[in-house]
Amino acid sequence: MAAARHSTLDFMLGATADCNAVLKALQPVFQEQGMTETVHNWEDHGYLATYIKKNGSFANLRIHPHGLVLVDLQSYSDHTKGREETDQLLNKVEERMKEFFHGNLKRVKRLPTILRGGVIDRYWPTADGRLVEYDIDEVVYDEDSPFQNIKILHSKQFGNILILSGDVNLAESDLAYTRAIMGSGKEDYTGKEVLILGGGDGGILYEIVKLKPKMVTMVEIDQMVIDGCKKYMRKTCGDVLDNLKGECYQVLIEDCIPVLKRYAKEGRMFDYVINDLTAVPISTSPEEDSTWEFLRLILDLSMKVLKQDGKYFTQGNCINLTDALTLYEEQLSRLYCPVEFSKEIVCVPSYMELYPLRLRKRRECV
Amino acid sequence: MAAARHSTLDFMLGATADCNAVLKALQPVFQEQGMTETVHNWEDHGYLATYIKKNGSFANLRIHPHGLVLVDLQSYSDHTKGREETDQLLNKVEERMKEFFHGNLKRVKRLPTILRGGVIDRYWPTADGRLVEYDIDEVVYDEDSPFQNIKILHSKQFGNILILSGDVNLAESDLAYTRAIMGSGKEDYTGKEVLILGGGDGGILYEIVKLKPKMVTMVEIDQMVIDGCKKYMRKTCGDVLDNLKGECYQVLIEDCIPVLKRYAKEGRMFDYVINDLTAVPISTSPEEDSTWEFLRLILDLSMKVLKQDGKYFTQGNCINLTDALTLYEEQLSRLYCPVEFSKEIVCVPSYMELYPLRLRKRRECV
Repeated sequence: MAAARHSTLDFMLGATADCNAVLKALQPVFQEQGMTETVHNWEDHGYLATYIKKNGSFANLRIHPHGLVLVDLQSYSDHTKGREETDQLLNKVEERMKEFFHGNLKRVKRLPTILRGGVIDRYWPTADGRLVEYDIDEVVYDEDSPFQNIKILHSKQFGNILILSGDVNLAESDLAYTRAIMGSGKEDYTGKEVLILGGGDGGILYEIVKLKPKMVTMVEIDQMVIDGCKKYMRKTCGDVLDNLKGECYQVLIEDCIPVLKRYAKEGRMFDYVINDLTAVPISTSPEEDSTWEFLRLILDLSMKVLKQDGKYFTQGNCINLTDALTLYEEQLSRLYCPVEFSKEIVCVPSYMELYPLRLRKRRECV
Repeated sequence: MAAARHSTLDFMLGATADCNAVLKALQPVFQEQGMTETVHNWEDHGYLATYIKKNGSFANLRIHPHGLVLVDLQSYSDHTKGREETDQLLNKVEERMKEFFHGNLKRVKRLPTILRGGVIDRYWPTADGRLVEYDIDEVVYDEDSPFQNIKILHSKQFGNILILSGDVNLAESDLAYTRAIMGSGKEDYTGKEVLILGGGDGGILYEIVKLKPKMVTMVEIDQMVIDGCKKYMRKTCGDVLDNLKGECYQVLIEDCIPVLKRYAKEGRMFDYVINDLTAVPISTSPEEDSTWEFLRLILDLSMKVLKQDGKYFTQGNCINLTDALTLYEEQLSRLYCPVEFSKEIVCVPSYMELYPLRLRKRRECV
């Protein structure tokens, strides 16, 4: 794949560094490559040496006086030769540093090379902002709908992955998510009335329809998510999205808020409401309060269309977002009627984190 | 945490770039920060501008003529102020690029900031070489044994993680791994003779001892792994490593090869052999053949100490390493006696990948 290859190599020394000595030790390694040197000396803050090669590659050597030496190498190539050259140069730098410092290197760290600006973007951070490289090898679908950017990318281990506006939503490997949000196999959906909010990937709908419910109504705002998923997420949705209507289900392409309001007004009631809309708002700053308002509105409206013995299932969020999860639970105490809930932690393959802290809530009032 | 913070911001333009125009557009953003500019012009390969700040920070602006603009920012700080300054600068660069190119930016990508040279190393690549940042917040144990480097690092979501010579071995969250390598709950260990090869974290031993076996013998080469795990991986090993001998188990601190040879010679037989030694050798190059020889030696010796109806369990490797897994299966056909095997894919939380392709093999000859 043609992309800029960014490689790093870091050394933590056992003591403060003689910056000039480190520079002198490494200079020949870069100069042997025919690279031209420019050095900046901060005095108090050490050195930055930049090495430039005729073919467009360059390296940075940053020497911090407290004993940290950082090497960066950037080159643009679409062939393995460039890759080998980079590796060889970094190997030489590492050898030279080991010769020079003998046992006095506390740590040597080389990260996997980062590919920048290639056609395929492999880096999709977790909900708590950590860097994760996926094994993406193909862009299957990439479109902007009126609501969001919709990507479906192929991963060798997870199958196709649905990414909405940069957030990993669901992969074909993630039946564990669908099972969890449906109640981990402990619910009997036979003959039941079910309402799914969101769920455009079709996973929940597909799994519930197998269980002979009376009627499942799914309300998804974005037709294009359905269009993409029915074509490229078939391990998740099977054939259930091929028609918006089946024997025991219907899909409404609508904003769920007016639908919920209409149902509440009409007295239309469900045994299960499954909220698969979005993750918990991550920000806990006051200006985001409207997002929590939105969440509470959905919850309140859902309670209104839930039968006396009905259940409401949703996902929480990455368990590291403890503040967001606490706030979520606080919202539950602020509903118009008191509710009980339970939660479960599930490992979802493609999320690479223990993600859907599932909240299960029993209705206690009308 | 005091560390060098490396931030990146990448732009893919909709067309080839007028390198000089991009440089002119962004120059003021860096100059406003009091940064000193050095520009290298490759002509054919575009520009590299380096911006240096008095406080030791610096930025690289690499403009590729085919329409890729890469910004790197490195600063060293242990306070949030430095972080905010970095974010503000990148925000300004992004704003300026959006103003300048209007709708003609195909992609804007900012990775989570990489922390380099801090006390805590959060980056532990997967078996197939992908970059993954863990939520490590504490170095619990870090020692060199005669055999390997042993680290136990604390992760908020996975608990303590055992990392042997840079490879993530097992986290306290990973009961799924232990369950899988024991046969996914389908085996009856009551009254059985079990041999564990490796397994120094104590997870398998702890789980099997609960199931009332006749005798479990664990052969672990590295006393220091046991010392570290019995102290810091107690969710995995419970109290089982507190003593090297219990009512129905013993731990031998030995190389398992001579032990297996001794048992084979003595005619000592087991119902189960569980190989928890190491992952499949990842390299498939000829010079690594000795590693495969080692693996086959272990397998051959294990077959010799396995009863007629006995079972041999082990882990495979990350399912992306298809070549290594194919080679592994080939080894099975080269054993001194024909064997059958089955495999299962299990999602192990801390591995962040579908890792232990478990091979289960039934013995068919003596």
